[in-house]
Amino acid sequence: MLKPIIFLGLLLLLTCESPDATGKADASTETTTKEEVPAEGYPWDIPQSKPDRPLSAAMERLYDNYLTPRPEDNELFSSFKYTPLEGLDYNNGDGTISRRDASKIIKENGKYYVWYTRRNTVAPPVGFHRAKEATDEIPSTDWDLSEIWYATSEDGFTWEEQGVAVPRPPKPAVGWRSVTTTDILKWKGKYYLYYQAFMEASGLKGDHCPVAVSYADSPDGPWTPANQVIIPNGEPGTWDQFSIHDPYPLVYKDKIYIYFKAAYGDRPEYLVGNGLAIADDPLGPFTKHPLNPLFNSGHETALFPFKEGIAALVIRNGNEASTIQYAEDGVNFNIASVTSLMPTAAGSYIPDAFNSNGNGRGISWGLCHFTNASEVKGKSHSILARFDCDLSLDVDDPAMKNTQLWLRPEVYFSQGLTKEQKARLQTSR
Amino acid sequence: MLKPIIFLGLLLLLTCESPDATGKADASTETTTKEEVPAEGYPWDIPQSKPDRPLSAAMERLYDNYLTPRPEDNELFSSFKYTPLEGLDYNNGDGTISRRDASKIIKENGKYYVWYTRRNTVAPPVGFHRAKEATDEIPSTDWDLSEIWYATSEDGFTWEEQGVAVPRPPKPAVGWRSVTTTDILKWKGKYYLYYQAFMEASGLKGDHCPVAVSYADSPDGPWTPANQVIIPNGEPGTWDQFSIHDPYPLVYKDKIYIYFKAAYGDRPEYLVGNGLAIADDPLGPFTKHPLNPLFNSGHETALFPFKEGIAALVIRNGNEASTIQYAEDGVNFNIASVTSLMPTAAGSYIPDAFNSNGNGRGISWGLCHFTNASEVKGKSHSILARFDCDLSLDVDDPAMKNTQLWLRPEVYFSQGLTKEQKARLQTSR
Repeated sequence: MLKPIIFLGLLLLLTCESPDATGKADASTETTTKEEVPAEGYPWDIPQSKPDRPLSAAMERLYDNYLTPRPEDNELFSSFKYTPLEGLDYNNGDGTISRRDASKIIKENGKYYVWYTRRNTVAPPVGFHRAKEATDEIPSTDWDLSEIWYATSEDGFTWEEQGVAVPRPPKPAVGWRSVTTTDILKWKGKYYLYYQAFMEASGLKGDHCPVAVSYADSPDGPWTPANQVIIPNGEPGTWDQFSIHDPYPLVYKDKIYIYFKAAYGDRPEYLVGNGLAIADDPLGPFTKHPLNPLFNSGHETALFPFKEGIAALVIRNGNEASTIQYAEDGVNFNIASVTSLMPTAAGSYIPDAFNSNGNGRGISWGLCHFTNASEVKGKSHSILARFDCDLSLDVDDPAMKNTQLWLRPEVYFSQGLTKEQKARLQTSR
Repeated sequence: MLKPIIFLGLLLLLTCESPDATGKADASTETTTKEEVPAEGYPWDIPQSKPDRPLSAAMERLYDNYLTPRPEDNELFSSFKYTPLEGLDYNNGDGTISRRDASKIIKENGKYYVWYTRRNTVAPPVGFHRAKEATDEIPSTDWDLSEIWYATSEDGFTWEEQGVAVPRPPKPAVGWRSVTTTDILKWKGKYYLYYQAFMEASGLKGDHCPVAVSYADSPDGPWTPANQVIIPNGEPGTWDQFSIHDPYPLVYKDKIYIYFKAAYGDRPEYLVGNGLAIADDPLGPFTKHPLNPLFNSGHETALFPFKEGIAALVIRNGNEASTIQYAEDGVNFNIASVTSLMPTAAGSYIPDAFNSNGNGRGISWGLCHFTNASEVKGKSHSILARFDCDLSLDVDDPAMKNTQLWLRPEVYFSQGLTKEQKARLQTSR
């Protein structure tokens, strides 16, 4: 059975084209033919590039869609480890202090900086669906009546809260009700915080707000609000007509890329999508990408420069929740791996967020949040925590490439049948 | 901007072909043009079929790869609920009794039947890597020195153990060391149990064993061993040269389809794949599919007839772990959704496992196992548990379509950094 392989080898020398099933040229084909793939059966030694033989759809995908056949070798696969933070006070978890939605983390003046949504209210939130009961002092949601604060850290584990960065401006200025869910851009020596600027308690009509920006000469402020809507909502009838959430700036291809989220479709039947707006200047004008939405899943999406493209953690909601995706062009994302127990609302430390120059190095840690910090009803609040992973070309930690997560049986049993489900099973027996 | 849409409509009437970006014909296109998609921006109302406009790769995928845009509507998306079983004794969890690897569940004589690997040994296993310390009475692994037992249930929650189905035959017969990981076939009124038949303690050279079969006229036995290797290992140098694991029979297209697993590549760098062998008779001969392996991931793979094809839970290990996949032809599987907290080693209740006739109805419950039932070292054993889900065309339970799994922060913190990782972070700061 070696003859056909030799023949193919000659053919390759003549045509410089791969005879693989997809018809795509494959630089690795010459290597593959040298590996002397047995004619009968897929080889025992895992071929690192696509072997020259008929393949099932899944095996085609293994070579076409993933950086490496084994997730353990895949620079875009990681499991996640979690550590509680030191240094942040939550008033004994009584629900009056909440911290959530960490920005990406940057290193300035020898310290790590993070910005986040901080709520400090007289009472815990009444809840999204009871928003009418909210007052000027009692919040509807966990992110109502909030401000943008920041903290710094020497080691990423212990954080020192530095105070407010962007306060709520006086009514009726943009964001008077709440300023939340911020992220940071550094551009030509200046700093820009993009954030959601609420003019009503979230939950009243939905979770509607525009995106605003404040800027400063130092990461320690003072921050000046630009007093303008930076990314306008879409036209009536379009997916982002009501909300532009989670503005997330990166510098890519010498332009400012702001990825953002919008939930679309009427509740509760909505879908979560993510789009992109591009500008030459931090204050705009921003042009939305014509192919928006760019993600079909992801309640939170944490993006970072990776090699020549952009990679993303696609977190919660949608057919592709819990995936790590990659777009060589920053626009057309494909699944690069599937993982589990992802960091909710991840804000990663991204050393090259603003200067990757086509050689993004990836991430290895960041902050995330838990919105279910309290089990006690009426003490609802969120806490920040640290996550570690290995999605970095500069880290090689096999212990972060765990494809078998061992959780206690109790964790599974915590996901129990509801009363209604038990009743349904009783009758359908 | 309505003119092009009308023009496309006319074009469609003339050509009956879709102008969508992939060039595939799309029966839904006429509906789409009627929806009057706004020219500027993806529409607010979630189009249920692919809209006639340029789409990003992710949005193309949303329509090409998934049954519905929202996972909540997707018959091949489900979350999972877990319930402990009643009726099975584990000797106070001292490690001497273990039950694992449930077969698919079938209903016979008005009762549910399940077969599984049961170990009852004088001591708990010494461990895969200490297999040399195993004796004729002390097991190497949790599945060493095991037998195939069965239990029945009226309701799927309380199970009554009926006794042994396939015992270990006397040395040196096939399976003398251990018979494990069975699954059931019903064919022309007879019952067939396929299983792994070990002739040495697993861990000594790997986890090597052939597949054997026993048959009976009743699900209650008695079972007669066929005394032959049913699915032979692959040729030397091929992926399944050493192990054929988890034999899993279904009747599909009037033939016997046995899916099986093999780990390939030298440890610890191995990959897990799943293949298929087809026969006209339960005792063979079985012909392996030329496109094997058919899965690129999945330490355990639970398959079931679904519509005209076969669907599968792809559980643990690989770039596509935690996915639910579907193959219209039973061979070329694609990702149909991504989920989390999947049932380990699921054995589902499949009413139409042997007579789906091109109209597979799906699954809604089964048994799984937890191999980490004990936290105490030296008491290692596995327990069976029940899982519920909604991957059935005959069930419509929105509470099973949860894309936001709320696990306590403690669950995340249970995945902590190792000493080595802490040291690495200390030095890299």
